[in-house]
Amino acid sequence: MAGEPTKRAASAASGHGPGSRLRIRTVEIQPDAVVLIDQRALPHEETYVRCATWQDVAQRIGDMTVRGAPALGVATAGALALAARQAAAAGLRDVHDALEQAAVGLAATRPTAVNISWAIAEMRKVWQQTSASEAAAEPQALAAALFTRAQQIHDDDVERCLRIGAHGAGLLKPGDTILTHCNAGALATAGYGTALGVVRAAFALHEGIAVLVDETRPWLQGARLTAWELQVEGIPYRLITDSMAGHFIARAAVQAIIVGADRIAANGDVANKIGTYTLSVLAREHDVPFYVAAPLSTVDRSHMTGATIPIEERSPDEVTSFAGVPTAPVGARACNPVFDLTPAANITAIVAEIGVLRPPYADALRAACEEGTCIS
Amino acid sequence: MAGEPTKRAASAASGHGPGSRLRIRTVEIQPDAVVLIDQRALPHEETYVRCATWQDVAQRIGDMTVRGAPALGVATAGALALAARQAAAAGLRDVHDALEQAAVGLAATRPTAVNISWAIAEMRKVWQQTSASEAAAEPQALAAALFTRAQQIHDDDVERCLRIGAHGAGLLKPGDTILTHCNAGALATAGYGTALGVVRAAFALHEGIAVLVDETRPWLQGARLTAWELQVEGIPYRLITDSMAGHFIARAAVQAIIVGADRIAANGDVANKIGTYTLSVLAREHDVPFYVAAPLSTVDRSHMTGATIPIEERSPDEVTSFAGVPTAPVGARACNPVFDLTPAANITAIVAEIGVLRPPYADALRAACEEGTCIS
Repeated sequence: MAGEPTKRAASAASGHGPGSRLRIRTVEIQPDAVVLIDQRALPHEETYVRCATWQDVAQRIGDMTVRGAPALGVATAGALALAARQAAAAGLRDVHDALEQAAVGLAATRPTAVNISWAIAEMRKVWQQTSASEAAAEPQALAAALFTRAQQIHDDDVERCLRIGAHGAGLLKPGDTILTHCNAGALATAGYGTALGVVRAAFALHEGIAVLVDETRPWLQGARLTAWELQVEGIPYRLITDSMAGHFIARAAVQAIIVGADRIAANGDVANKIGTYTLSVLAREHDVPFYVAAPLSTVDRSHMTGATIPIEERSPDEVTSFAGVPTAPVGARACNPVFDLTPAANITAIVAEIGVLRPPYADALRAACEEGTCIS
Repeated sequence: MAGEPTKRAASAASGHGPGSRLRIRTVEIQPDAVVLIDQRALPHEETYVRCATWQDVAQRIGDMTVRGAPALGVATAGALALAARQAAAAGLRDVHDALEQAAVGLAATRPTAVNISWAIAEMRKVWQQTSASEAAAEPQALAAALFTRAQQIHDDDVERCLRIGAHGAGLLKPGDTILTHCNAGALATAGYGTALGVVRAAFALHEGIAVLVDETRPWLQGARLTAWELQVEGIPYRLITDSMAGHFIARAAVQAIIVGADRIAANGDVANKIGTYTLSVLAREHDVPFYVAAPLSTVDRSHMTGATIPIEERSPDEVTSFAGVPTAPVGARACNPVFDLTPAANITAIVAEIGVLRPPYADALRAACEEGTCIS
């Protein structure tokens, strides 16, 4: 069994499977490591970080080496495979317990993106197929099964994004300029993107597709990551500050707004990068369609509305400085909620892997989750 | 005559006149120089730049050493006084011509703020009171008269801002949190501020006044200048990124939005820092009052609506870097319109030195300009 994972990893890198379609390798699930492109160093340096333990992965989620809701799900799956491997190597008797401990540690890293919890639930199905005593007797077999499942989750994510892209491209037309916020691209997923997956697919399908990229303070995911991805792909774009979106929307320079999601409530309310809500208000004001592109793993029907979704607060230092350069006066106090809530009423459609969902979202998401795999 | 200006400058610095109420000296009109606080170096360094020629001042307006519509008007007035002094020192025969040349050079520095044109018109009234031959015969007398007028414009600006502050404070109540964008403070005026003049006055009048400060990308006037001013004054504030305003407004954490203006059209449309328009849409969406605080020198009734006001585009480098650090990939293309237009319909009131103007603004501004000094 131990050989198979190595081969799979090699084959993904050498041109087979959905991974071969990817120019950007955000998260790679290897038998003995999770390899992450370092998103803190982009766009200036393209470096990769090798995580040999689940604790390494958890730390890298916390410090934003990897970010983006679907990518966090994939990294979490890979981390749990590593946790089983670690338990096996250490000769632990209770591998299940070690996995549950890793799950707790991973779930605590970032509170808003539900894909971490989703990936834990998916991986738990695998280890619960073996009893505690079977796991103790053949820990390497369990580790290999978890590795295989983590790779599937990776490859499934690419497939889902490809389907999201195809569905979303049909909503656009030649010559459209699409505004996007944050990075819901290859770097936020296993390698194709949700909102940028739609952009990629539309660019392949239509003439004259262009993108306006919000820089997305404080972490500058737009300036650093989305601009870099679009440049890699050769898709025309212009970078703007977040405050400029209203100006361009009011001047009819934007034909559609497409963003990703960190969590979607049962009623269709969306938690996403801070600033998303404002774009949805501007879209309604100017009759510009506002689309959310996300896999069903982002849906959390345990929240009836967005009001109860936890909104992560990160360090105020992200607001008072950049790249080590302080911008505000010494002693400045700042707020740093990194997500906001967009009410379902402001969303024209949710583009998922199964198709384009329209209001009322409560019905559409219930039906979708009966077919797919949502937390409910 | 030549001695008087020196005395005036000294007296302003030593505690007499409206200047003595100021803790922040944004633009100082001296007999032989215009002294500017270097707004590029704030908040980390408080340094002053001495401009001995009108060309120096023009360059400093262009490179943002001084910015803020009313402050640009005051600096322009001082520059024209220097132009007369330069002409006198050089023994130029046609001082009027030299002044008109300086006026052309100063008007070309920045296109959106009308206060530059307003100050040129005010100063021209002075030099047109002398004939060309009188000016040639007694150039120092004309230079002294222009210096005196420039100082009046400086001191008038402080008085106007104090009145704006008093009128605006009456719109607020104890415990209010005020959201502001960019810097419409002491640093944008001769030293008290328009929007921040209202905040200063409200803080003196009411308990529990607090401020949410948009950092205001790309130039970070909020993070660098407004935060610094509020810290100097001891007024409680929190810094946020521009993208967070909608989140806090939606959570009812903002009781009023107050901004300045770079130019106000005859119908009440307002050109102001990029991002202002978006705030006005959010304000309407959430029934939060949206106030524009500006002296009547900001009104330009030659524009019937805001649609014809020129919107300055600055270098894209301001968008592709942050505090001097490049953020976007090498070769990234960016847009950098530095102002936007807020329609009169989104503005709850315009707070001017003569009082609180309410819609319909066409009537209110016409009446105001009959009393005051507007471009019309």
